[in-house]
Amino acid sequence: MGLNRSTILAATAELSAAGLVSEEAPGDTGRRGRPSLVVRPEPGRAHVLAFDVAVDRVVAARVDLGGTIVERHEAVRPRAGADLDRVVEALTRFGRQLHRSAPAGSTCVGLGASYCGMIRPGDGMVRFGPELGWVDQAFGAELGRRLGLGRPVIVGNEAHLGAQAEQRRGAGRGLRNLVYLHGDVGVGGGIIVGGTLLDGDGGYGCEVGHMVINPYDGRPCGCGSRGCFEAEVGERALLDTAGRPADEFGRDAIRAVVDDAVRGDPRASDAVRRVGDWLGIGVANLINLFNPAMVIFGGMLRDLYPAAAATVQRRIATNVLPVARERIRLRICDLGDDATLIGAAELGFEELLSDPLATLARTGDRSLG
Amino acid sequence: MGLNRSTILAATAELSAAGLVSEEAPGDTGRRGRPSLVVRPEPGRAHVLAFDVAVDRVVAARVDLGGTIVERHEAVRPRAGADLDRVVEALTRFGRQLHRSAPAGSTCVGLGASYCGMIRPGDGMVRFGPELGWVDQAFGAELGRRLGLGRPVIVGNEAHLGAQAEQRRGAGRGLRNLVYLHGDVGVGGGIIVGGTLLDGDGGYGCEVGHMVINPYDGRPCGCGSRGCFEAEVGERALLDTAGRPADEFGRDAIRAVVDDAVRGDPRASDAVRRVGDWLGIGVANLINLFNPAMVIFGGMLRDLYPAAAATVQRRIATNVLPVARERIRLRICDLGDDATLIGAAELGFEELLSDPLATLARTGDRSLG
Repeated sequence: MGLNRSTILAATAELSAAGLVSEEAPGDTGRRGRPSLVVRPEPGRAHVLAFDVAVDRVVAARVDLGGTIVERHEAVRPRAGADLDRVVEALTRFGRQLHRSAPAGSTCVGLGASYCGMIRPGDGMVRFGPELGWVDQAFGAELGRRLGLGRPVIVGNEAHLGAQAEQRRGAGRGLRNLVYLHGDVGVGGGIIVGGTLLDGDGGYGCEVGHMVINPYDGRPCGCGSRGCFEAEVGERALLDTAGRPADEFGRDAIRAVVDDAVRGDPRASDAVRRVGDWLGIGVANLINLFNPAMVIFGGMLRDLYPAAAATVQRRIATNVLPVARERIRLRICDLGDDATLIGAAELGFEELLSDPLATLARTGDRSLG
Repeated sequence: MGLNRSTILAATAELSAAGLVSEEAPGDTGRRGRPSLVVRPEPGRAHVLAFDVAVDRVVAARVDLGGTIVERHEAVRPRAGADLDRVVEALTRFGRQLHRSAPAGSTCVGLGASYCGMIRPGDGMVRFGPELGWVDQAFGAELGRRLGLGRPVIVGNEAHLGAQAEQRRGAGRGLRNLVYLHGDVGVGGGIIVGGTLLDGDGGYGCEVGHMVINPYDGRPCGCGSRGCFEAEVGERALLDTAGRPADEFGRDAIRAVVDDAVRGDPRASDAVRRVGDWLGIGVANLINLFNPAMVIFGGMLRDLYPAAAATVQRRIATNVLPVARERIRLRICDLGDDATLIGAAELGFEELLSDPLATLARTGDRSLG
């Protein structure tokens, strides 16, 4: 979390005094010197509510301090026409259920949300959410107000949160430089540079989906441009290239094409190869730019990448400078479709972990210990 | 420099005690509270030797603590066939002259070098320097050995150093997120993310020149790929598109095309427009990825950008998501052709500024104060 050792020690002591974690001696570590104590979260003492507004569903969950999803509610969401009011209403209903069903001894220490669009840091404003047609919608403030739990909702972009979740608890554990790609209708990116999420001047960095790689002959993109990475490798590119009808969409449709390709169907195989080549071109660019230790594929790219891996690897061998690909690893994400939700939960826990006593004081419940 | 306040105060006190800087009260700052003292370098007390191996020249200079180039030697360099031995020999000769001519009271506190290729951090090994045909050449170690000044030469990539110099002393002063593009035969990049140079897992990040933007119809690139950013906007792309003969090259040739375009010559204008469009495509991608506060053009892009600015701006308006371009500024570099040399000098000063007493002890001259 970018905290230094003395801050961690102080926070751990406070969490331990409050009964939220216990410290125990580790087993034989095989290393010299006095081993650090292992900090384990005490189950059932503190939780957050985590929300996920994805392209095809809304999810809410109660997540404990160890990152375990204890209870979840989920609803499919119409692809278009979901306005702020309807989305917030569904999440509020789920959130209240989760709050009521929390065990008596557990305190809600934070609220975090993931959203499939560009988020203004600080107030959770959705600046641009093309999948739902949102521009400048006060999502975080509105969800916080309706939940009425006396806490703000911290909102992040889904691919940013997926990257952070995979770095803390998934395929990229402990890596200081990684690229996480989240595919759905479009392709979002979360890029960890030197241990920290690349946010840029206004918090709007990592927009890998709109890196143009085919400017003159490319497919039109939802952003108004042409030949964007997400136009060439997003859901519609694969389904169109495979000749699937325009009314098919979503993860099941993607998996059907991939399954057909694996079985040797020529049209599906050709589609996976052609879209896989564009995927490789984009991934190679990102490796040249970021020299990451790992590229992680999430969302529908979890399904596409394994079938297209050889094509992607060929592009990397051709397009990436040798010294930048010496140690590169490519993986599908460990946390599956929960990567973004787990990332939202981490947002909710951030305040507690950086300042335990003040956060617990604000919960109005100092009696946890 | 990424140092915290207490480290800076301690270092300043040591520098002041050693007579390298003086502290004075500032004039009226117009702000409340006790103003910080202004630290000014004492002229003629400490210097570094800075070296620059660029695509068309080798340069060596003595630079004082304030970043002023006090004396310089420069030689044109043949574009190909300059081996390690010849380059190091020329730089060593310059370095010894600069050392001899330094004023008696001034101490050499560091040696820094800029190189137009990919550098391994730590030992200054040139991993890949296509402009000179170098692969795995121990440049830093060899230059340090031959100079015989008892100090290592710290080596960095020219565009990385240009970015840092522009951030500390040039167009990007004080910005925490910026992209610096250095054009010559190819295009190098230096990208500052959250105040720090993006180095990646092995120190080989920022390779913007090999971001592929025209994979199927693009110009062949020196790296073996096709349609790389530098293949589409480098020196050869502009000269070929303008119909200049193959034996013309270098900055004068670039300026001649730009001048012709500004005068209305149709073929030169068309070349600036077409290459400017590719420049815009690449710059737009970088803005989407990094959400920087500023993009700075250095090297030959200093000459090209002003003539192609309208074309580049059009691409940004089309290809960059609105929220990511709200505050973007595009500038040519402030430090001109010395950006990389100044960056090399900063490398040389880094050790002194982070640990003054230890560095001065190593110079064998504690009597400065």
